[in-house]
Amino acid sequence: MQILGIDPGLRNTGFGIIDEISSSNLNYIASGVIETDASNSLPERIRTILTSIDLIIKEYKPDVVSIEKVFVNVNPQSTLMLGQARGAAISGCVLHDLPVFEYTALQVKQAVVGYGHADKEQIKKMVMHMLSLNAAPRSDAADALACALAHSHYKRIGQIFNMASVKKGRIRER
Amino acid sequence: MQILGIDPGLRNTGFGIIDEISSSNLNYIASGVIETDASNSLPERIRTILTSIDLIIKEYKPDVVSIEKVFVNVNPQSTLMLGQARGAAISGCVLHDLPVFEYTALQVKQAVVGYGHADKEQIKKMVMHMLSLNAAPRSDAADALACALAHSHYKRIGQIFNMASVKKGRIRER
Repeated sequence: MQILGIDPGLRNTGFGIIDEISSSNLNYIASGVIETDASNSLPERIRTILTSIDLIIKEYKPDVVSIEKVFVNVNPQSTLMLGQARGAAISGCVLHDLPVFEYTALQVKQAVVGYGHADKEQIKKMVMHMLSLNAAPRSDAADALACALAHSHYKRIGQIFNMASVKKGRIRER
Repeated sequence: MQILGIDPGLRNTGFGIIDEISSSNLNYIASGVIETDASNSLPERIRTILTSIDLIIKEYKPDVVSIEKVFVNVNPQSTLMLGQARGAAISGCVLHDLPVFEYTALQVKQAVVGYGHADKEQIKKMVMHMLSLNAAPRSDAADALACALAHSHYKRIGQIFNMASVKKGRIRER
């Protein structure tokens, strides 16, 4: 099962695809960062995010999407911008009828590093270790890969404990 | 020229289509409200907005989109939700390669009522008057129609004063 992880942002949207061959066999497939030009209009930047997500899905054909729930920023205008970028990224996924799961940064950190206060460098190292990468991905790409790994983790926990589903990033009991 | 106006929101997204036959001949075509179910997941609600905008564009084939710039809310979580809805609505438009123009609520009010402190009822009345409507549209639909009327207004002003373009809701001098 291929999982597409997304770390949304208006300027930089990280993406990462992993292949879950088995619970202990996770393969790195691809990762990168969708960048938008800050001098472009908002509709143009939204188009860049939307068409890039579309191309990534067409190229790698993931089965499921795991997207980071974004923090509300101290700056309300930034929060609005971030929301619009996230809306565009999710739009790109639902266009392909992909199931989209959402996880908070805390849930991602707990799944990947083991505790919620892990910093960016620790996440990057764990992502590199878990996927046997020789080189470090860019931060946004590493966060996206971490989000994909988190989905694999929570899905597995759900199966072990015979829980009904991992819904909206929360594991629900049957 | 057909103009699609959009007043975005996660729960209710208003839309309205007008046909600009000439500067003084504006015809009402259609309007309504896209409602999403608050009990659904965010990706499902985004899908509802995206597919509804897609259907509206396929049905009415507008030439241009005029969308209201949203206010940042006092509640950051609401701002984030609104941003995501707006991102989905714009995504639906750029998928059809439509030019998207943005206007603040103040610009819409100034264009339609003549001053920026007009209230919802005044906007509704002016929209009904300008489009010769016998019945009042719902508030979100009226706001969307007002946004479409505002684009027609600013575009015309741009032409009269020989300005280069109405870009990002602002009239730029050549």
